[in-house]
Amino acid sequence: MSAWVLPDHIADVLPSEARHIEELRRGLLDTARSYGYELVMPPLLEHLESLLTGTGEALDLQTFKLVDQLSGRSLGLRADTTQQVARIDAHLLNRQGVTRLCYCGPVLHTRPDRPHATREPLQFGAEIYGHAGLEADLEALLLAQDCLRVAQVRDFSVDLADVRIVRSLLAGVPVEAQVLRAVHAALATKDASELASLTRDFPEASREGLLALLSLYGDAKVLDEAERALQRTPGVRDLLANLRWMASRLGETPVTFDLADLRGYAYYSGTRFGIYARGASDALVRGGRYDEVGAVFGRNRPAAGFSLDIKQLVSVVPPRPLKAAIRAPWGEAQDVNAAIAALRSRGETVVCVLPGHESEVDEFHCDRELVNIAGQWAVQAI
Amino acid sequence: MSAWVLPDHIADVLPSEARHIEELRRGLLDTARSYGYELVMPPLLEHLESLLTGTGEALDLQTFKLVDQLSGRSLGLRADTTQQVARIDAHLLNRQGVTRLCYCGPVLHTRPDRPHATREPLQFGAEIYGHAGLEADLEALLLAQDCLRVAQVRDFSVDLADVRIVRSLLAGVPVEAQVLRAVHAALATKDASELASLTRDFPEASREGLLALLSLYGDAKVLDEAERALQRTPGVRDLLANLRWMASRLGETPVTFDLADLRGYAYYSGTRFGIYARGASDALVRGGRYDEVGAVFGRNRPAAGFSLDIKQLVSVVPPRPLKAAIRAPWGEAQDVNAAIAALRSRGETVVCVLPGHESEVDEFHCDRELVNIAGQWAVQAI
Repeated sequence: MSAWVLPDHIADVLPSEARHIEELRRGLLDTARSYGYELVMPPLLEHLESLLTGTGEALDLQTFKLVDQLSGRSLGLRADTTQQVARIDAHLLNRQGVTRLCYCGPVLHTRPDRPHATREPLQFGAEIYGHAGLEADLEALLLAQDCLRVAQVRDFSVDLADVRIVRSLLAGVPVEAQVLRAVHAALATKDASELASLTRDFPEASREGLLALLSLYGDAKVLDEAERALQRTPGVRDLLANLRWMASRLGETPVTFDLADLRGYAYYSGTRFGIYARGASDALVRGGRYDEVGAVFGRNRPAAGFSLDIKQLVSVVPPRPLKAAIRAPWGEAQDVNAAIAALRSRGETVVCVLPGHESEVDEFHCDRELVNIAGQWAVQAI
Repeated sequence: MSAWVLPDHIADVLPSEARHIEELRRGLLDTARSYGYELVMPPLLEHLESLLTGTGEALDLQTFKLVDQLSGRSLGLRADTTQQVARIDAHLLNRQGVTRLCYCGPVLHTRPDRPHATREPLQFGAEIYGHAGLEADLEALLLAQDCLRVAQVRDFSVDLADVRIVRSLLAGVPVEAQVLRAVHAALATKDASELASLTRDFPEASREGLLALLSLYGDAKVLDEAERALQRTPGVRDLLANLRWMASRLGETPVTFDLADLRGYAYYSGTRFGIYARGASDALVRGGRYDEVGAVFGRNRPAAGFSLDIKQLVSVVPPRPLKAAIRAPWGEAQDVNAAIAALRSRGETVVCVLPGHESEVDEFHCDRELVNIAGQWAVQAI
C-alpha cells in the first residue's frame, strides 16, 4: 500500500475547507466567550480510568488505548471531552459558584459513529456547572442555537426530551443491564414488537408507558398526549412542564419532542436536546443535563452543556468567499518590503513572487498587484 | 491513584493560559496567512510507514503506536507535522508551482524532549514548496520572526548554519551509522576529546575540519574563520556565502552562527535556523531547508519552513490583560434579553447571574453591570 494512503475514516483537511473550519472555530469560541464561558484545553491522552469511569460501555469501545512508556500504565485517547472538563471543574478549579467552561479540539474514535463519519471529529462544546435549575439547561440550549446562527446554519429545529421520563417508567422494575440496553435500543428504533417482547414481564404501568412512548414524538401536542398516557407514573407531569417551559423560551425556532430517544445521551441525567438542520443526517448538536458526570472526581456538581463536531458542521453550511490577495514582486529593496509589511499589517494577504516563478498561476486568487509607479509602490487591480 | 491524576508531562491548560494560547494561535495563523500560507489540517493518526519513512530513528522512538481495529494495521500518533504537510503537497495538491502551507495542532511524544517539556506540544508551522533558491529559506525565516513579533516576544536572536557543512566534511569518508550518530552527538555537545577519538582514522582534512567546527560558533567573524579553517573542503565557501547573505537580510535582529549544531534537524538538507529568546531554555523556533522530506510520497520537491510549540511560546511572553465583562440579571423579559444580545454582538462578554447565585464572586472579572434605569437597560460601572 502506498505511503500516502490514510486509514479508513481518517482524512486530511485541505486549504479551502480548513480555512472555513478555522473561521467556524473562531466564531463558536467567540460566541461562547460572549456568554462568559472560559476556554480550557484538556490533554488528548489520559489514564484510562479517568477517561472511562462512569461513562458506560459505548465510550470504552470508542476509545483507542495505548501504553505509557514512562509509567507502564494504560492510557486512552479521548473519545469525548465532557468527562475531562468535569474533572477540571471538580478538581482543578474547585470553585463554589457557577462555572462556565468551553473547549475545542480533536477527539478520536476507534470506529466511525455513522457510516460516513470521520474517526477524528473536531469537538466544540460548552458546559455550565453549579446550577441545578432549568435556567442552566436553557442557557446551554440558547448558546448552542447562537453558535449555529454564527456558523450560518439556516432552518434548524430543536428536539427536546428528558431522560428521566424513561427512567421513571423503569423505576422499581428489576431489569438486567443487558435487557435495559435492549429496551433503550428498541425505544430508539421505535421497534414495538421487540419492546413488547422485552417488557412482557414488566408491571403493567411500566409496560404500557414504555409502549406509549413509541408514538410520543412530534410537535407540542405530544406533551398533552404524554400527560394523559403517563399519568400513572409519578414525577412525569413535572418533567413535561419543564419541557413546555423550555420550548416556550426558544422564540421562532421549531421545536419537536421525541420522548423515547436516548441515543447518544449515555451519561445524561435530565433534559436532553438535539439540534437538527437540513443536510445533516444526524443531530448537529447534542446537549442537556448530566449532573453525575463529575462524581468520579469527587465532586458531584450540577452540570449542563452541549457539544458538536465542527467537521460535521462545515459540511452543512455554505463556504464563505475567500478574500482575494495582492501579488507583489520579490524585493531586494527596502521600500518594497516596507510597502508589503504595511499591507500585511492592515490584514491583507500579500504573496511575493519568488524569482523564476513569475509566470505561475497563483495558489491564492490575486485580484490586485503591488506595482511601482513613478518611484512609489501602489496597489492596482490586475 | 486518583482518577484526576494526569500522566507525567501531560497537563490541562486552564482558562487564563488557554485564552492566551488561543490569542497566540490566531495571531500566528493570521501572520502566516498574510504571507499567503494556506492552512491545512492533517490527521492525528496515520499508518506508521507514512509517518516514519525516511525520518530517522529519533522520530520513531517519539511516536506512540497503536493498532487500527478496522484494518489490523499499525497506526502512529503524529510526533511532528512536517512529514504530513509534505505528503499533502506531494500527493493531494500536486501543484507545479510554489505552494505555501501552514498548520497548527497538537502532536504527541512518548517521552518529553527536554526535562520540563510537555508530551503534547501545540505545533505551529509554515512550509514553502517548489522553490530551490535561498529566497524561500529567507522567506520562512522572515515569517518566523514576524510570528514571534506578533506574539510579543522581545529580544530574540537567530542562530544560522547549514547542515551541508558537516556533510561536506564527511563526504567520501566511510562511516558506520552508529559512529555517525556519535560524531553528531560529539559535535552537538562540543566534546573535543570524544570527537578526536571518533575521527582518529578519518582523512586528515575531514578530521581537522570537524575538530575546527567545535570552536566555530559566535558572531559574523565565525564565517571568516570558517572560510580559512575549512578551505580544503569543496563547496563550503559557497555555503558560507549563503549564510552571510541571509544574515545581511535580517535587519536589526542579532545573528549568531553555530556551524557544528545539528540537534533537532534530523531531516534537514540545507540551511537551518534556530530562534532563541530570553526565558526559553531551548530554541523557540527551528527551521530551514528539507528538500528530501516529500521523496517517500513520490515527489521530491524543494521545501523550506519552520515550526514552533505554542505551549513553549506562551511560557516566555507576558500574558495580555483580560477584557472585563458585564454582569447582567437573568432575564425572563424580552427587553433585557435583547439588550444582552446587542452587547454580545458588539464583542462584549455578558455573564448572566443565574437565580440564587446573586451574591457569588464572578468567574469573569466584571467591571460593569446591566441595570434598568427608568425602564431602559443601560451599562454602568460597578
